[in-house]
Amino acid sequence: MPFSFTVKERDKRSSARAGLIHTPHGDIPTPAFMPVGTQATVKTLTPDELKELGANIILANTYHLYLRPGDDLIARMGGLHTFMGWDGPILTDSGGFQVFSLQHLRQVSDEGVVFRSHLDGSEHVFSPEKVISIQENLGADIIMVLDECAVPDDRHYMEAALRRTHLWAERCRAAHTRTDQALFGIVQGGIFPDLRRQSARVLADLDFPGYGIGGLSVGESKEDMLRMLEIVVPLLPDDKPRYLMGVGSPEDLFESVARGVDQFDCVLPTRLARNGAVFTHSGRVNLRNARFAEDPIPIEEECQCYTCQRFTRAYLHHLLKAREILGLRLNSIHNLHFLLELMRQIRHSILESSFVDHKERFLASYRVVDPAVRALRRASHGRGKRSRRENDLP
Amino acid sequence: MPFSFTVKERDKRSSARAGLIHTPHGDIPTPAFMPVGTQATVKTLTPDELKELGANIILANTYHLYLRPGDDLIARMGGLHTFMGWDGPILTDSGGFQVFSLQHLRQVSDEGVVFRSHLDGSEHVFSPEKVISIQENLGADIIMVLDECAVPDDRHYMEAALRRTHLWAERCRAAHTRTDQALFGIVQGGIFPDLRRQSARVLADLDFPGYGIGGLSVGESKEDMLRMLEIVVPLLPDDKPRYLMGVGSPEDLFESVARGVDQFDCVLPTRLARNGAVFTHSGRVNLRNARFAEDPIPIEEECQCYTCQRFTRAYLHHLLKAREILGLRLNSIHNLHFLLELMRQIRHSILESSFVDHKERFLASYRVVDPAVRALRRASHGRGKRSRRENDLP
Repeated sequence: MPFSFTVKERDKRSSARAGLIHTPHGDIPTPAFMPVGTQATVKTLTPDELKELGANIILANTYHLYLRPGDDLIARMGGLHTFMGWDGPILTDSGGFQVFSLQHLRQVSDEGVVFRSHLDGSEHVFSPEKVISIQENLGADIIMVLDECAVPDDRHYMEAALRRTHLWAERCRAAHTRTDQALFGIVQGGIFPDLRRQSARVLADLDFPGYGIGGLSVGESKEDMLRMLEIVVPLLPDDKPRYLMGVGSPEDLFESVARGVDQFDCVLPTRLARNGAVFTHSGRVNLRNARFAEDPIPIEEECQCYTCQRFTRAYLHHLLKAREILGLRLNSIHNLHFLLELMRQIRHSILESSFVDHKERFLASYRVVDPAVRALRRASHGRGKRSRRENDLP
Repeated sequence: MPFSFTVKERDKRSSARAGLIHTPHGDIPTPAFMPVGTQATVKTLTPDELKELGANIILANTYHLYLRPGDDLIARMGGLHTFMGWDGPILTDSGGFQVFSLQHLRQVSDEGVVFRSHLDGSEHVFSPEKVISIQENLGADIIMVLDECAVPDDRHYMEAALRRTHLWAERCRAAHTRTDQALFGIVQGGIFPDLRRQSARVLADLDFPGYGIGGLSVGESKEDMLRMLEIVVPLLPDDKPRYLMGVGSPEDLFESVARGVDQFDCVLPTRLARNGAVFTHSGRVNLRNARFAEDPIPIEEECQCYTCQRFTRAYLHHLLKAREILGLRLNSIHNLHFLLELMRQIRHSILESSFVDHKERFLASYRVVDPAVRALRRASHGRGKRSRRENDLP
C-alpha cells in the first residue's frame, strides 16, 4: 500500500493522537512538523542536515517550482526527490495559497485562476487539472487539491469561494492518476462555523486519504483559529491524517495537537532564523540584540543541536551583525531542531499519556509574542496578512 | 618548539619543495593553500566542513576583526580559535593591505597609518605596535608585520613606502611578545627588481621564522609577478617558509610553487563560488549559464567533494537562479575542495619527483581566463586593482 495512516495512541484528556503515516519514501511519525523547502531547498540547509535534524518529511511549493525551474524540467530530471537529493517523503501544496496571495494579479472563475508570475509578469492559468498535472510531474508523496483562499471574514465572497473550492476538490480527485501519491482535500470556510462545517462534510464525503485545513493562520485571532479547529476536526474521518496548513509557532503547535491535528508546516523557524530570532524554552530572542555581543553560552545550554553544541551566542551575534551566511545557517539549524524536537516530545508525551501536563508545563514558561507586537512587526516589514507561506527570502 | 618548518623533499627540475610547518594548533603540509575567513568565518562554511575538506590552516583578517567584533572582545572570549570554533592553525594578516586599499581614507607617516572605518567612518590608527597588539589579542598561530602596500609601478612612492615597511618590520619584531605565535616579515618592492632585492635582504637579516611576499597579484602582469618571485625567493633563507599573499588561481599556484613558494591565500575560490563560477580541470565555468539548466551530471564526474557526490549541475543552476543560499555553499565546497586537492596533488608529485610533469599535464588542459577579459570583468564589478584580499561580500 503506497499510503496509509495508523493511529497508535489517543490522549484521554484531549483530542491529541500519536500516529504513523506510511509513504513510498518512508514513514512519518505524527504529530509531525514539516520544514518548508519552497524552491526545492529548505533555505540554507542540505538534505543531509535535514536528515540529521530528524526531519521525516519536507514541503515544497508548486507555484514556485512550476515557474522556476518548471515541473517539466524536474520530471525530466527524475522528479523532485532526485532533483533536490532528498530521498524522504515530500508534500507539495497546490499553489492555490500563493496565487491568491498575489494581490491585483488574478481573475477567478469556475475554470480556474489566471495570474501573473512574480518573476517576469508572464500570464498563467491554474486549474484543478493543471495543478494535479504539475504535482504529478513533481512526484511528491502527498499532494494537495487546488483551493481558493478567500479573505477569512468576508461572508459573501467566502460562500462563492467555498463552492468553487468544493468543485475543484472533486475535479482534482478525478484528474489524479498517480497511485503512488496521496491526494489530500482542503477544508476552507474562513471564520464562519456553518461554512467550516459544510466544508468538512463535503470534503469528508469525497473520501480523501488525508485532509488539509486551510485558510487559517492568515490574520484571524488565535481564538478564532482554535475555535475553527474544534468545529472541523470532529467532522473529519478519524482514521485520516489532518494537516493544519501554515502553522506554526510552538504555542500553536501544542494547542492544535490538543485539538486533533497531525501535520503542520510553516516557514516561521527558517524565516525567523534569517532575521536573527531563535526559539528558546522561555520564548523567542533576537541574537542581533546588543546584550548578546559578549554572551559566552550557547542559545540554550541543554540543547543538543549542532549550533548549540559548537557555538556561543557571542559568535552568532557577530555573524549576524557582519551579515555572514553562516549565521543564517546556524540559526536555521537551531530553530528547526527546536520545533522538530518539540514534536518528538509531544508525540512521546501522547504515547506516555502525559500530553496535557507536558503542554501546560511548556506553555507556563514559554513567553508568547504579543499579537499586537507581532502585527506591528509584520506591518513594518511590509508584509500582508497572507505572507506566512509565501516564498520567504529575507 | 611552538613553530618550526622542515623541508621534506626538493624537486630537481624546479625550485618546488614539499615541507611541514609545525604550529601549536597542528601541522601544515606544504605547499599549502589557506582558505580565507575574513570575519572569523570562511564564508558560508562551518569549521567542521573545512576540516572535512582537508584545510590545515585558515586565514583571518586583522582589519575586519579589529573593527568588528573587536580584538579585545575576541580575547575575552578566549581568542580567535575558541571564538570561531576552529581548533586548527590560523594565520592573521596585519591589516596593512586592507588599510592601504581604502582610497582617500588614509594618512601615512613613519608613526603609522590613520584611516577611517568602512563601517561607520570612525577614525583609527594602525602602528606597528598596534597591529602586533591586535594580533596578540586574536591569538593566531602565524601573524604578519605591518607593511605599506604601495602602487606597484610608482618608483618614487615605492622607495618611501619600502623604507617605512622595513622600519615597521623591525618595530613589529620588537613589539611582539607571545612566544606561541610566529611573526612573519613581508617583502615588498613593487615590480622593481632592485627594490625587491633590497627588501628581501633587509627582511632576511631581521631573521623572521617565515616570509610573506606582498604587493604582488595586485594588478601587475603575470610575467611581472613570476619575475619578482624569481628575484626574491633565492634571497630568502632556504629553511623558512615563503608565503605569497593573495594568490591564487590554479595556474598561479603551479607557477609559484615551481618558483619555491610554500603558502598561499586567496578569496578567489569562495568569491567565485558566490558568483556562480566553479573550477573544473578544463577551466572555470559559470553554472548560471543557461546551458547547465538541464545538465544531469555533477560539476566534475570524478570529483570526490560533497557537492559533486550529491548534486547535479541542473540543481546547482536552479539554486543560483533562485538566489538560494545552498547554491553558494555547495559551490564554495567544490571550489575549496578543488584547490585543496590541487595542493595535495602538487605536494604528492613533489614527493614522487614528478612535479614538473604533473604541472605541465594540468596546465595543458586547464584553460586560463584571459587577462584582458578578467580586467574587464573586474572593472565592471566596480572593483579596484587591490580588491583580491578585501572583505568579499558579493
